[in-house]
Amino acid sequence: MDIVEELLKGNRLALSRAITAIENEYDEAMDIMKKLYPHTGHAFVLGITGPPGAGKSTLTDKLARAYRAQGKTVGIIAIDPTSPFTGGAILGDRIRMNGLTMDEGVFIRSMGTRGSLGGLSHKTADAVKAMDAFGKDIIFVETVGVGQSEVDIVKAADTTMVVLIPGMGDDIQAIKAGILEIGDVFTINKADHDGADKLVREMNMMLDLDGLMTDWRPPIQKVIASQNEGITETIENIEKHFKYISENGILTKRRTERSKNEMLDVLHSNIGSYITNKLVETGKMDEYVEQIKARETDPYTVVSNVMKDMLK
Amino acid sequence: MDIVEELLKGNRLALSRAITAIENEYDEAMDIMKKLYPHTGHAFVLGITGPPGAGKSTLTDKLARAYRAQGKTVGIIAIDPTSPFTGGAILGDRIRMNGLTMDEGVFIRSMGTRGSLGGLSHKTADAVKAMDAFGKDIIFVETVGVGQSEVDIVKAADTTMVVLIPGMGDDIQAIKAGILEIGDVFTINKADHDGADKLVREMNMMLDLDGLMTDWRPPIQKVIASQNEGITETIENIEKHFKYISENGILTKRRTERSKNEMLDVLHSNIGSYITNKLVETGKMDEYVEQIKARETDPYTVVSNVMKDMLK
Repeated sequence: MDIVEELLKGNRLALSRAITAIENEYDEAMDIMKKLYPHTGHAFVLGITGPPGAGKSTLTDKLARAYRAQGKTVGIIAIDPTSPFTGGAILGDRIRMNGLTMDEGVFIRSMGTRGSLGGLSHKTADAVKAMDAFGKDIIFVETVGVGQSEVDIVKAADTTMVVLIPGMGDDIQAIKAGILEIGDVFTINKADHDGADKLVREMNMMLDLDGLMTDWRPPIQKVIASQNEGITETIENIEKHFKYISENGILTKRRTERSKNEMLDVLHSNIGSYITNKLVETGKMDEYVEQIKARETDPYTVVSNVMKDMLK
Repeated sequence: MDIVEELLKGNRLALSRAITAIENEYDEAMDIMKKLYPHTGHAFVLGITGPPGAGKSTLTDKLARAYRAQGKTVGIIAIDPTSPFTGGAILGDRIRMNGLTMDEGVFIRSMGTRGSLGGLSHKTADAVKAMDAFGKDIIFVETVGVGQSEVDIVKAADTTMVVLIPGMGDDIQAIKAGILEIGDVFTINKADHDGADKLVREMNMMLDLDGLMTDWRPPIQKVIASQNEGITETIENIEKHFKYISENGILTKRRTERSKNEMLDVLHSNIGSYITNKLVETGKMDEYVEQIKARETDPYTVVSNVMKDMLK
């Protein structure tokens, strides 16, 4: 099967194989991406992030159904907490989305890291492009957590929604400050729990104090995803943001910045692999590590030498 | 002031400046690290990770006090949720540790990312080395979250403690599977909350089912850090693990692996910066980005060309 040709025709199996090639860094992945790239740029990409337990999967499920009801096709990329040692993506509560997987207009894919050094953000970006070329109208990228890797991942998004819940405990202040800069739209899920109004007030205060504020003030919507409450309003917020960035040039600017970052990501990752492989093949890796261990040299001197050896 | 000389003499200001140089990637950082490297290898490094709200700071505080009572000197590196856009590390609940900061035998440092691509893990590793060369007996590396960046960060540790709390919600299954492979010692904090015993049972079940199990079965300790309960037992668990890995060669193996990964990290990061700078200086970056945006070329073709241009 010609994966690219079939994918562009709308063959789901081809899309699935393309993403597997991306995820596992098969040799053909780069060739597939080269051919798909001219067909990208159509989809709207929504990033969804937030701490563990915020109910992001349930919310994603409800949002996807609402978009489907509008006749839009949906792609979902769920980034799972990673197991860098055995390399398995954990399906976890993805199972709850079973109803959606029966719908031909929805394509769901879980992704985890496979032991590579920080490769998940560019793999995610490539998976988004594959779904985009496939013809999906809206692509959700859902990730657990608010750390650096999550921030890198949501950089692939046009609009980023941050999901919080009441009663997050000690780290919430730190988290809130961190997400303030990535959240275009905020959702307070489980809004029937104690502390929802307090959280909304706190978020509003933080937004009032935020020096980076542009014309867009991120809306804060209370939601009970499990009961389908607040979903329509959330979609309105997302659409409003997309309209805002489309009309004032921010979308173009974000996508340019994204092209640049993705190119650099791929570049860094490929050069890294190339040089690591060279070091292993020539036996120099073991030699260097032994010398570093014995403290005859240090990692920084080794790096200087390797760079002199390998770069023009 | 000669930072290296002063640091090795035990000057706290010099240590602080060295870490600032590492964090901000000042030119002198690499030179400092080269000179400090021969003086490292003495400290025991404890990684502490877990989801937001698990009370890691309080626990770190209590553990640090207990080690101080044993006469050991302590370094604490607290990785804060990151703000990659403005670059500020958030002090957050670090303030609670105020009592500790009055103690000359304790050195506390918060670190955040400063916009570089995934540089936090090697910056953390370098900060650990600076504290090690300074003469700290035990160095805590505390990080919020359980994502890939956190896993990369705790790779700098000899022993990793994972902190959980009862009632973590939907994502706990996924989290638990992810941490099972990095946790040498487990702590269930806030053990007076509902569900603590259930969590211990679940953790035990997961450990029973874990195919990777070695001779070391990670102990699970219930703790109420805020009331100083379970701290002695936790330290015993940590010490037992350290003794175990020291005696059977695992520590040496881990440190060798770490040397290798750190060297590769520095290598990848330096080569990445070198090439990015070259692209920017020559004006090629903007040229490529425009071509990619116009879909006249694609990021993957650009990367192939850049690699041909720059690598020997």
